[in-house]
Amino acid sequence: MTMATHREETDSLGVVRVPADRYWGAQTGRALENFPIGTERMPLPLIHALGVQKQAAARANVALGDLDSGLGDAIETAAREVADGRLDDHFPLPVWQSGSGTQTNMNANEVIANRANERLGQPLGTRAPVHPNDHVNRAQSSNDTIPTVMHLATLLEMRDRLLPALDHLHAVLRERAAAFGDRVKSGRTHLQDAVPVTLRQEFEGYAAQVAGATARLRRLTDDLLPLAQGGTAVGSGLNCPPGFVERFLEEVRALTGLPVTRTPDHFAANASHDVFVDLSGALGGAAAAFSKIAGDIRFMGSGPRCGIGELALPANEPGSSIMPGKVNPTQVEALLMVCAQVVGNHGAVMHGAAGGQMELNTYKPVIIHNVLTSIRLLGDAARSFADRCVAGLAPVDARLEDLSGRSLMLVTALAPVVGYDRAAEAAHKAAKEDTTLRDAVLSLGLLDAADYDRVVDPAVLARGGLSASGR
Amino acid sequence: MTMATHREETDSLGVVRVPADRYWGAQTGRALENFPIGTERMPLPLIHALGVQKQAAARANVALGDLDSGLGDAIETAAREVADGRLDDHFPLPVWQSGSGTQTNMNANEVIANRANERLGQPLGTRAPVHPNDHVNRAQSSNDTIPTVMHLATLLEMRDRLLPALDHLHAVLRERAAAFGDRVKSGRTHLQDAVPVTLRQEFEGYAAQVAGATARLRRLTDDLLPLAQGGTAVGSGLNCPPGFVERFLEEVRALTGLPVTRTPDHFAANASHDVFVDLSGALGGAAAAFSKIAGDIRFMGSGPRCGIGELALPANEPGSSIMPGKVNPTQVEALLMVCAQVVGNHGAVMHGAAGGQMELNTYKPVIIHNVLTSIRLLGDAARSFADRCVAGLAPVDARLEDLSGRSLMLVTALAPVVGYDRAAEAAHKAAKEDTTLRDAVLSLGLLDAADYDRVVDPAVLARGGLSASGR
Amino acid sequence: MTMATHREETDSLGVVRVPADRYWGAQTGRALENFPIGTERMPLPLIHALGVQKQAAARANVALGDLDSGLGDAIETAAREVADGRLDDHFPLPVWQSGSGTQTNMNANEVIANRANERLGQPLGTRAPVHPNDHVNRAQSSNDTIPTVMHLATLLEMRDRLLPALDHLHAVLRERAAAFGDRVKSGRTHLQDAVPVTLRQEFEGYAAQVAGATARLRRLTDDLLPLAQGGTAVGSGLNCPPGFVERFLEEVRALTGLPVTRTPDHFAANASHDVFVDLSGALGGAAAAFSKIAGDIRFMGSGPRCGIGELALPANEPGSSIMPGKVNPTQVEALLMVCAQVVGNHGAVMHGAAGGQMELNTYKPVIIHNVLTSIRLLGDAARSFADRCVAGLAPVDARLEDLSGRSLMLVTALAPVVGYDRAAEAAHKAAKEDTTLRDAVLSLGLLDAADYDRVVDPAVLARGGLSASGR
Amino acid sequence: MTMATHREETDSLGVVRVPADRYWGAQTGRALENFPIGTERMPLPLIHALGVQKQAAARANVALGDLDSGLGDAIETAAREVADGRLDDHFPLPVWQSGSGTQTNMNANEVIANRANERLGQPLGTRAPVHPNDHVNRAQSSNDTIPTVMHLATLLEMRDRLLPALDHLHAVLRERAAAFGDRVKSGRTHLQDAVPVTLRQEFEGYAAQVAGATARLRRLTDDLLPLAQGGTAVGSGLNCPPGFVERFLEEVRALTGLPVTRTPDHFAANASHDVFVDLSGALGGAAAAFSKIAGDIRFMGSGPRCGIGELALPANEPGSSIMPGKVNPTQVEALLMVCAQVVGNHGAVMHGAAGGQMELNTYKPVIIHNVLTSIRLLGDAARSFADRCVAGLAPVDARLEDLSGRSLMLVTALAPVVGYDRAAEAAHKAAKEDTTLRDAVLSLGLLDAADYDRVVDPAVLARGGLSASGR
Repeated sequence: MTMATHREETDSLGVVRVPADRYWGAQTGRALENFPIGTERMPLPLIHALGVQKQAAARANVALGDLDSGLGDAIETAAREVADGRLDDHFPLPVWQSGSGTQTNMNANEVIANRANERLGQPLGTRAPVHPNDHVNRAQSSNDTIPTVMHLATLLEMRDRLLPALDHLHAVLRERAAAFGDRVKSGRTHLQDAVPVTLRQEFEGYAAQVAGATARLRRLTDDLLPLAQGGTAVGSGLNCPPGFVERFLEEVRALTGLPVTRTPDHFAANASHDVFVDLSGALGGAAAAFSKIAGDIRFMGSGPRCGIGELALPANEPGSSIMPGKVNPTQVEALLMVCAQVVGNHGAVMHGAAGGQMELNTYKPVIIHNVLTSIRLLGDAARSFADRCVAGLAPVDARLEDLSGRSLMLVTALAPVVGYDRAAEAAHKAAKEDTTLRDAVLSLGLLDAADYDRVVDPAVLARGGLSASGR
Repeated sequence: MTMATHREETDSLGVVRVPADRYWGAQTGRALENFPIGTERMPLPLIHALGVQKQAAARANVALGDLDSGLGDAIETAAREVADGRLDDHFPLPVWQSGSGTQTNMNANEVIANRANERLGQPLGTRAPVHPNDHVNRAQSSNDTIPTVMHLATLLEMRDRLLPALDHLHAVLRERAAAFGDRVKSGRTHLQDAVPVTLRQEFEGYAAQVAGATARLRRLTDDLLPLAQGGTAVGSGLNCPPGFVERFLEEVRALTGLPVTRTPDHFAANASHDVFVDLSGALGGAAAAFSKIAGDIRFMGSGPRCGIGELALPANEPGSSIMPGKVNPTQVEALLMVCAQVVGNHGAVMHGAAGGQMELNTYKPVIIHNVLTSIRLLGDAARSFADRCVAGLAPVDARLEDLSGRSLMLVTALAPVVGYDRAAEAAHKAAKEDTTLRDAVLSLGLLDAADYDRVVDPAVLARGGLSASGR
Repeated sequence: MTMATHREETDSLGVVRVPADRYWGAQTGRALENFPIGTERMPLPLIHALGVQKQAAARANVALGDLDSGLGDAIETAAREVADGRLDDHFPLPVWQSGSGTQTNMNANEVIANRANERLGQPLGTRAPVHPNDHVNRAQSSNDTIPTVMHLATLLEMRDRLLPALDHLHAVLRERAAAFGDRVKSGRTHLQDAVPVTLRQEFEGYAAQVAGATARLRRLTDDLLPLAQGGTAVGSGLNCPPGFVERFLEEVRALTGLPVTRTPDHFAANASHDVFVDLSGALGGAAAAFSKIAGDIRFMGSGPRCGIGELALPANEPGSSIMPGKVNPTQVEALLMVCAQVVGNHGAVMHGAAGGQMELNTYKPVIIHNVLTSIRLLGDAARSFADRCVAGLAPVDARLEDLSGRSLMLVTALAPVVGYDRAAEAAHKAAKEDTTLRDAVLSLGLLDAADYDRVVDPAVLARGGLSASGR
Repeated sequence: MTMATHREETDSLGVVRVPADRYWGAQTGRALENFPIGTERMPLPLIHALGVQKQAAARANVALGDLDSGLGDAIETAAREVADGRLDDHFPLPVWQSGSGTQTNMNANEVIANRANERLGQPLGTRAPVHPNDHVNRAQSSNDTIPTVMHLATLLEMRDRLLPALDHLHAVLRERAAAFGDRVKSGRTHLQDAVPVTLRQEFEGYAAQVAGATARLRRLTDDLLPLAQGGTAVGSGLNCPPGFVERFLEEVRALTGLPVTRTPDHFAANASHDVFVDLSGALGGAAAAFSKIAGDIRFMGSGPRCGIGELALPANEPGSSIMPGKVNPTQVEALLMVCAQVVGNHGAVMHGAAGGQMELNTYKPVIIHNVLTSIRLLGDAARSFADRCVAGLAPVDARLEDLSGRSLMLVTALAPVVGYDRAAEAAHKAAKEDTTLRDAVLSLGLLDAADYDRVVDPAVLARGGLSASGR
């Protein structure tokens, strides 16, 4: 006797064959046939959030007396498995499906019902005693459930992935700033020589950018705490009993530790996702910060002999099989490519968010796919960049000193002492004769060597000059 | 004797001819020749903010004893004229110039110096007693001045234009919601018939979207309060004396009422503009909300006879010379085009903000051009849309009632009463025979007319059904 | 005795442990550790194109006498397996790696070398007799190989996936246009009632949009025929022997049927990918067309009772468990979400393409990831939309006739006959009294019934009116 | 007696006061009041194209006997003034109006009618003998006229502005390439030292990018030759007599020299603008090329002492009042900001083009505003960049030689001669001891000085090495 490879599942349109070893049912199977588009599956964090949501809903339904506690327990246990990622292989649907995410909500209902029934001793496909719609989806609609789990998934990914990664990158940048200390280097504006700065200032500036982006993202994440659950199909809450939402929120708080609340407007909550535009915009703000930082490090690390060469990059892999010392800024490049993707993903989010109609925005899957992808990519890349690039950066002291001493912009410090005209004369002379500024000043007799070295000290200039108070 | 049409102005590269009736000087004239690109001038709100900034800087320089008070007064007076928009014609430079905005900073320095000298009895072009660099630009660099005025201009445009316009639109939407009251209409999800809602709910949902976008924008605007002033060329503050920044901020607060502060990191403040990415992203969030609202109103106002026809649009202009009653949703279209532009502008801001290098981001003009354009467009269009479209919307009661009564989705209310199977049977019968649901239910003898009318009451369904507590 | 789960592979930095059942080597293993970013792997069409490229290179090397034919045969056979997709599981690297795609080129070299050596009786990891660099990568660099396979993969995906899908959608739209024929419907401009059109015209217009997008894409695809191969590391062709490129191109032509040529400029070919921006832009043009078509079909198919209802959508899945006849336009929504993604992907391509530096653009993986994703999504969705939505659309004749007969815009036809003023009078009367235009005209005695029906015939108006020649 | 400052004009909704010295009429005046949004006016090239279109339409109407030749002549003369830009001040309407551009079409009709009547001796506002609708707009609708002039304006701006500017930039790049000749420089991949190239190769690569972008843009421009004229309101051509289109096209060809044709599908031509998405995408391709070129020149020109310093930038303006020799790459920055704007503008075009509905796309003004802005900016900036930056670039020979001689990547040339292992040993030694490669090789006794200089000749390597045939 051979094992059956498929079984039959049914929905209101009839029978659908599904693989015997999968918990999904007829509607999922039908959707698999109807949407043979691309390779992108609905994001796993969303699936896991659906597990949380179904668990909380079951508890609320039991508490309200609307669901038998035996069925409720079975649903809860199965939903917990979904939340924990143990049933990921049972969520095969693509992003490109109904714009409400209905098929994925049904996928969760079907998987949980089958898994619960199996635990209760029934074969798969019986839809009893636990029914995917009547019990698992009780008091819910796809139209309030999917926006709820979009929020939950994002809240969790921000809390557990991106925000810690940003904090980590910030810490590594601060650590490098402290380690580099007051090593002076030539400042550069318009990529042209400018008055000096220190490596510490440079890296503290990067850290400040990361800190700012993090603070704004943290704040925006809180805007996702209000949830759509309870609005059901159109926002009016039809078929959602009084008390359900309050209990549901309590359970979600208990399960996740997130201080979620009820949306102030259920109609807007089903039909619009404007907050995701802002959040995606702020992910772009982080990408802008990363692009600046990564690009600067690539520039300072260019060389080793024909570039700027002020920083030595860590060697993570052979850059070339023939050239010792060839180290490519591959972590920089990976991060910059992630930034390019975040720019693109925002375009998709914006396009989808602008396209809601009447009681429903039907770009939900593409919005959450892009938001979660950006979060994942920025988080992973920030951490990798921190650990495999920033943490391993080393100053090339000889080069830093050579360049910062060479700069004619040091003449800026002379102007208050010898006057603009004579300062300019010295700079012109140095440029024309290709000498140091010091040689030109001494040869013109503007200052003696001791005075020159006291006044035209790059380290002092980097602190704002002799007249600056401690800034 | 004829009036000279031009005069000569000088800078370190030599002599430049400028129009005799313009206050600008050599560097502005040179920039006009060097950047014959496009038609977009530097935004006026930025020019006005430069007036404020130069006025505050002059006061600070006088207070610190670094500037003669007679010269300071003359600078202040001229700067005030710039701030008040009385010298707009003297700022001819395009957006497409040095990426630091240096030419526009020099434009302000030159105009104010010439105007101040004129007031002090000197001919234009003398650069004395007030010198554009030594006095007007004292203790400043373009590299800290331009980011400072980017923030100031945006803060003022947000406070004085966009945020009030959003509040106004919100109020008009709330007013319409109240006026429409509990008129019931067919809900629509996936643009397909769904259970009922009220027009009030619909418009309160729109108001909630606007309120959310406004709150997020208001918060982000505050992120612009920290200013770059004091960092000078590279962030180190070279040549900016102790005490200058504190006094400068006091003056700006007095002049504008804005609670501005000092940036926590001058290096980041010159070299990055990440906050503008977030702000521009949030302007996109407002655009997403507007797109949804405008599109819905166009949909409900489609017709008058071959469309949805639930709302009558105000007739602002002849829609057609031949067809009485042809009213086009032109305010909707203008607003939607503005939203498209805001989407585009964000792309430019993002691209520019990601491109900073070392001590300077040199996309400053293009960033502020796009941010201020989006603010202006959204503000103007929101106000026009509120006043010329939303305020004039009228419900078409006959149509609302006809459609909401026709919907087969009302069957949803029957399921708890007669059971799912018999409810479905009634709906099928009505669909097949093209009758009302009521006819089908009565003819099947499921309910009598009185019970039907009590249970299947769209107004009750829109409130969440018979079992709902007052939501 | 247990099977080892891992073996050791080596590169110039030392030893790396890799899974025993995988063909990849040290550099791939190292990259897996160094780039733990995201879930997106390098696109399979690119991997398959690498198989073609390595096969052609091996043949060229053998032909030039630079590679032993025994080794060449082994390489060829292994490369063919890569090309055929039989070794997909051996290409685990993410998109987010070196911006040159070096690790993926090395992945191919290592897999092919190990597979070839295995076939030649050697254990994995020996790097002999076939060496990944010396033999598989001979005469090549990642810097010319990766742009070459970016072009090849795109050419093949366009030829084999997107262009046929567009042709198919075009054919289905034309078929529907023919089947719908001259059924008259109300035209709509600004979504307001306008003079009549036919359903055939509507769908022929859609087909024309698809045909236009297809033609432009087909042409742009040809711009990818020139290949970078032969430029090696910087475009100068160092270490690529004379004759290699010509022979390589011959082999690629034989293997793929694509009339590939040599790039006119190897420096530009390694360092820039501008053509992909144009191609991605044109994929956006297709997305614009799809958005218009899909949105219109959703609009015309809205209802069934409270919307436009001129088209009946095919029922592919239960729209609701409670509401018979609820059919959601899910194929429309899937397609519209794909369009949103294509919009976003373009942003990533543009950002990456603008970021090349000196002899190399290091955004290669993110560019090709987005281009191939857009091609895949548009192709799959176009086909699904054609087959599961367009092909099943049915006109709702009663509704089409009802609406087109109701329109007051029919008055346009009267103006040339009874004059503008009297025509307007009739329209005003019909609007005011809520009657048909016919009733108003007859009651005003402007025409008799027979004349009215002859002149105000929507079908005639849709052909341009009585005076029109056959258009 | 004082001159009246205003006069009254009328339309079907009543009387509107307009400035006495302006030719526009009631509908323009009404639109000015109804759309107080932003500062962006409808683009002048579009207004000028409307002049051409109205002139051609008048000629066609006269030729068909549908318009009195006296009136026709007066219309033609006035339209020519519009086309020639002599009436620009009479087109005050903003981009943000009806999405069909109806108000701007009426603006043209009103201005031409008033101007023609004035010429015929009538006071402004009489609407006789020339009527704006009956005569100037005869056989036309805004819905076919505006897409027609969108195409015409773009065709003319491409032909007369952007394409010549691209050709000019290409020529200047080629001229510099020839002048720079075979000066050798260090190649750079990943911004890290690589094998040598020549400055000629570098600049020929840039020229090749520009040539490619130009060719693709030229081809796409031709896709705009088919015009929408003749479709009137919905594409059916109602009220457009047989023969009109053919004659209209002849006249446009005569007036512009453009080989315009009739659109193959009038329904698609009014309702979609997909070609503009492709064109805007290809403008992005040009922007990608410009970004690469400009960024490279900024990099090579960085310094003068603390950067790469291989190229000397022309000094167009004082970079700093205190620092002689400070030259900022301002033309590079202006061009890069233009590229950022082009990226953004594409987003607006894409958003608008995707938003068409049924018989009309109502994003026409925002689409053409962005397309024409991108064309203008790229054209102006390309020309300015060519003349004020590229043409003035000078190689810094000492620096080029110093850097290219220093690179350890020259070891690549040794491998075929002394074997990989010994070559690597030499490179390691040079890196470790911070000597030249030459010193290391000679000290190891691998080659004698003469052989070394023959084999490790950067100029030979840049041509592909000793074994390369003349590439």
